[in-house]
Amino acid sequence: MRIEAIDLFYVALPKIERAADGTQDSFLVRVRADNGLYGWGEADASPLVSLAAYICPMSHSNIININEALLGETVNDPDDVRRLRAKAGAYGLDIQQIDHAVAAVDIALWDLVGKHLQEPVYRLLGYRLAYPKLPYASVLFGDTPAETREIARSLKDKGFSAAKFGWGPMGKVSLENDVALVAAARDGLGRHPELMIDCGVVWGQDDGAAYERAVRFADSRITWMEEPLHPDAVDAYRRLKDRRPPVRLAAGEGCDFFRSAEDLMTNGGVDFVQIDVGRIGGITVADQVCRRARELGLTYVNHTFKSHLQLAASIHVHAGIEQFRYLEYPAGGSPLILGLTAPTGLPVNQKGMVDCPENPGLGVDVNLETVRKYQRQVRIEIDGKVLFESKEP
Amino acid sequence: MRIEAIDLFYVALPKIERAADGTQDSFLVRVRADNGLYGWGEADASPLVSLAAYICPMSHSNIININEALLGETVNDPDDVRRLRAKAGAYGLDIQQIDHAVAAVDIALWDLVGKHLQEPVYRLLGYRLAYPKLPYASVLFGDTPAETREIARSLKDKGFSAAKFGWGPMGKVSLENDVALVAAARDGLGRHPELMIDCGVVWGQDDGAAYERAVRFADSRITWMEEPLHPDAVDAYRRLKDRRPPVRLAAGEGCDFFRSAEDLMTNGGVDFVQIDVGRIGGITVADQVCRRARELGLTYVNHTFKSHLQLAASIHVHAGIEQFRYLEYPAGGSPLILGLTAPTGLPVNQKGMVDCPENPGLGVDVNLETVRKYQRQVRIEIDGKVLFESKEP
Repeated sequence: MRIEAIDLFYVALPKIERAADGTQDSFLVRVRADNGLYGWGEADASPLVSLAAYICPMSHSNIININEALLGETVNDPDDVRRLRAKAGAYGLDIQQIDHAVAAVDIALWDLVGKHLQEPVYRLLGYRLAYPKLPYASVLFGDTPAETREIARSLKDKGFSAAKFGWGPMGKVSLENDVALVAAARDGLGRHPELMIDCGVVWGQDDGAAYERAVRFADSRITWMEEPLHPDAVDAYRRLKDRRPPVRLAAGEGCDFFRSAEDLMTNGGVDFVQIDVGRIGGITVADQVCRRARELGLTYVNHTFKSHLQLAASIHVHAGIEQFRYLEYPAGGSPLILGLTAPTGLPVNQKGMVDCPENPGLGVDVNLETVRKYQRQVRIEIDGKVLFESKEP
Repeated sequence: MRIEAIDLFYVALPKIERAADGTQDSFLVRVRADNGLYGWGEADASPLVSLAAYICPMSHSNIININEALLGETVNDPDDVRRLRAKAGAYGLDIQQIDHAVAAVDIALWDLVGKHLQEPVYRLLGYRLAYPKLPYASVLFGDTPAETREIARSLKDKGFSAAKFGWGPMGKVSLENDVALVAAARDGLGRHPELMIDCGVVWGQDDGAAYERAVRFADSRITWMEEPLHPDAVDAYRRLKDRRPPVRLAAGEGCDFFRSAEDLMTNGGVDFVQIDVGRIGGITVADQVCRRARELGLTYVNHTFKSHLQLAASIHVHAGIEQFRYLEYPAGGSPLILGLTAPTGLPVNQKGMVDCPENPGLGVDVNLETVRKYQRQVRIEIDGKVLFESKEP
């Protein structure tokens, strides 16, 4: 196949709230081939900044945009996808945004090649079987412990057997409030469901503050304590680990490229590495991190806070590895994000697990009505020449 | 002072060539305060993608643009600059381009505060004295050894006592051609000048290929071998170092944030860490890396391939540390870049050294005629609303 078009879509709710809710907008890419097939991908990134990386004028031989790298190229199999991912990375070596931006088209290329070869993506990655994953509902803390308890109860009622609470007031009021939030989440969930806590990078470089919480949170039997520290604070993660906290540590959603994940795994000492396929440059790179985590004896988990298109891209990466059993599963979500793949998607099955799609490619499709409804019309001109203009999906 | 305006300028030559020549365009930021003072900064980054990070619509609480973080803020002293740099970083936590983009405004804020306090930036960073630096002319290899010899001769004639050759055919023809290029550079420079070799990340992860060159290049008495490997290949740098090559290693220009530089220094084992103040998020972060390099007993060097505005921002960072004696000094350069700070700038003095400016702020000024001449008119609309439009400088 020849890549004939790369269509870029900026979709967003009419009004964006200043909240830790990544489902308010999205950046979508559709790759179309000359045989009529197409693939979709989604980045977890600023849509406008990412879009710019597809169309920015050349600055020199290391700042060349993604369209220039990929349009007209041949793509027929996984090796082609990896070759093109590397090409786009080399063309955009000095575009910092390259990893976030290219993630969307990388995912779209895997989807496209899967459809072409009539195989689900996890098989293209070399796995024979896909293992069901335990979804954990990923939600924000309520503003108070009482609100948090209610949210936890409603998740339990929906049948989730694992849930992650994060951000909101965590770390912003007092140690006792932090402990009360976690205890309320446990109380609302009941005894059995697994509980993860996302601290939203709130203690920065302060491994002491994080350790103090770890000791107290352990009473609520949490599966992991996520991002207590700043994403860059790899030495502080190591110090925290060396204090032997009574809970396991998770981090990694801020990793934008392979080395930053490797650094966190080998030098930071986390137990779970959480990779966002829509930030780290797509399925190609997430797959590399997943394999490295297995070599190191750590657990790979997806980070996903976008649509089921993103969720599908995420699950294919670690579907083939049975012991990597968790799946971050966005349980809330805006009508934009919930509608983006409707009626397809990744439901929770009767056993409370999520199956990796077996259809060719990612196994979900994008609802064009939703794209149309939420699309933002972007127009970028330089010296009066139109560099980009949003088109009908 | 109150930050009243952040003016963004995309300047570029009329025609951009696909060459490793970063002087073909630039991204400039001017910060204006309510007392009439202003500061200038420059990023070494894609202008359009960086500009987008100043004006992109909010996606959620971790994707908020730089203008929103800084406009209307108070800035009077170095602590304010650091506070505002941290604020912009937190607002843009999930904008990958944030570090490249924010570099320009961070530099502009140091310039502004220096003018306000009537101090050169190096003093604001806590140093009493600025030590002159040995400039090395930074140029590209010629297409052949013969052309390279001519370039080296002309640099010698200009009085440079150090020169760095990079990119071009290095690593793309054969081992013998690589060796001939380096030997020709040495031959053209003569016996005494220092010679640095920039390999332009050409051997990727292959520490064996890099080692083989290191052994051969040593005959030409090179000061360092720069970027033989991919910026992310920290483990490969370590393997190369463990082979005990007969030349010292330099890398770091690709570091976009503090941790990536720290990772390269502590885990990659480089001897020289080369930081681009216009990529790593400005003077604030470059200063942190510089101090860390001193703690670790490594040598900090600037990476600079833009205008003398950028060069000034670079020299202030390590001016106060005598043993960090090198200064990358762009010797070629387009009329855009050469004219950007004319008639101010950082000349090579009679002893062949470069003095750090002692004037308040960065100590150079921007030539508005040059900006006007090369400015690209950018216009970005979303849903018919103008988000950004280039203005007269």
